[in-house]
Amino acid sequence: MCQLLGMNCNVPTDICFSFTGFQARGGATDVHGDGWGIAFFEGAGARVFLDPRPSSQSPVAELVRNYPIHSLNVIAHIRKATQGTVSLENTHPFMRELWGRYWIFAHNGNLAGYAPELDGSFHPVGQTDSELAFCHLLQTLRSRFPGGMPMRAELREALEDFAARVRPLGPFNFLLSNGDCLFAHCSTELHFIVRQAPFAMAHLTDQDMSIDFAEVTGADDRVALVATQPLTDNETWTPLPVGRVVQFVDGAYLGVG
Amino acid sequence: MCQLLGMNCNVPTDICFSFTGFQARGGATDVHGDGWGIAFFEGAGARVFLDPRPSSQSPVAELVRNYPIHSLNVIAHIRKATQGTVSLENTHPFMRELWGRYWIFAHNGNLAGYAPELDGSFHPVGQTDSELAFCHLLQTLRSRFPGGMPMRAELREALEDFAARVRPLGPFNFLLSNGDCLFAHCSTELHFIVRQAPFAMAHLTDQDMSIDFAEVTGADDRVALVATQPLTDNETWTPLPVGRVVQFVDGAYLGVG
Repeated sequence: MCQLLGMNCNVPTDICFSFTGFQARGGATDVHGDGWGIAFFEGAGARVFLDPRPSSQSPVAELVRNYPIHSLNVIAHIRKATQGTVSLENTHPFMRELWGRYWIFAHNGNLAGYAPELDGSFHPVGQTDSELAFCHLLQTLRSRFPGGMPMRAELREALEDFAARVRPLGPFNFLLSNGDCLFAHCSTELHFIVRQAPFAMAHLTDQDMSIDFAEVTGADDRVALVATQPLTDNETWTPLPVGRVVQFVDGAYLGVG
Repeated sequence: MCQLLGMNCNVPTDICFSFTGFQARGGATDVHGDGWGIAFFEGAGARVFLDPRPSSQSPVAELVRNYPIHSLNVIAHIRKATQGTVSLENTHPFMRELWGRYWIFAHNGNLAGYAPELDGSFHPVGQTDSELAFCHLLQTLRSRFPGGMPMRAELREALEDFAARVRPLGPFNFLLSNGDCLFAHCSTELHFIVRQAPFAMAHLTDQDMSIDFAEVTGADDRVALVATQPLTDNETWTPLPVGRVVQFVDGAYLGVG
């Protein structure tokens, strides 16, 4: 299956350090060599970098690793294809617009026999179960909230209801953001960590590389990271609760609150 | 206003040479320093690179210039802001999905007092007249063809009808692609050229750089380029007819046919 990485912060932060370890999993330290992608929100705008090549060999990944894009919400994905060919249109994360906001979605899992009825408001371009789930999810939100975007808590509930319907079909770990906060659904495997003062040294699991966050962060900075597997080997990552949709806001873990 | 660049080919081709000249117009040889973007179709998928920084100083533009992405349809844009702040969400080209295809749109011009009624199927994220026109355009197509994507000729007619309604509001030069072909609407200024055998030497207007296409192309290759202003100074570029939507298919100029 795939690897997910998400970041939510209270000040625009670059993801270069974490991405360095994550990138290695795309064909170097791990087998997820069927493409990768990363999306950065900057204000209401979003930049999505996609490459159907393994991230460990991708010039676009090199750019992302070396060019510090500062963002409050980031979602990245490394693909191990289960459904759909290895091609650009099947590369996560996916982006659509709803209610005048961009929505970014990435999925780790495999949904068997998933065939929701689509009304045409959102239609997959590629062949993955993941993009289909994303289109179905947005359609569901749109029809549940015809008046426009609801408050965060209502959105979380709607996402949890949706996830409960899809979860029986197979692993359905996903990350979703509209640039305001980061939602995460763990159906089998997702971990998180919140970094805040006092900051300490972190060491990557996938590369022999360390960073002293005390040197590169401000005293009030707070950064939440979510990943399929912990990215560092000297920090404590916490498993997300299974079957719930949790939210990260301003770098804090709000859980189901 | 802005600068547009489009490419349509019969075999996947990189745009590195043309982009080198075009990139210089974003803050170096010309004043369009309010961001830039480029979209490449690869199959049904699309990669969109956006940067609110001037293209002449953008690391992302450096990547695009040096990393040959091969594509049948490319749309690029350099921005001189008229409506909307300089920010990522206002950076062209814009992307939306309709009928399970990605659509890419970039606009050069300025529409005064444009306030179409939107039904919510496509909603702007930023503040530009351009993104508003794109959303209105897709909404118009969607409601005109409820059965799904029509043939190219019908699509062209629908685009021309749409353009005729918007054109009175101000300059409305645009490029549009769904990955199948490239549509161009000239309301004030757009030029094109078709390169095919026998290929010759081309020299950029904005940089002292030449390329001998005979050395880098196959005998059957055909490439159409559309740009606000000609990109080379030793080839003959043809102005597009004003007030018409023309199509480029497989690197050929089909005009209104």
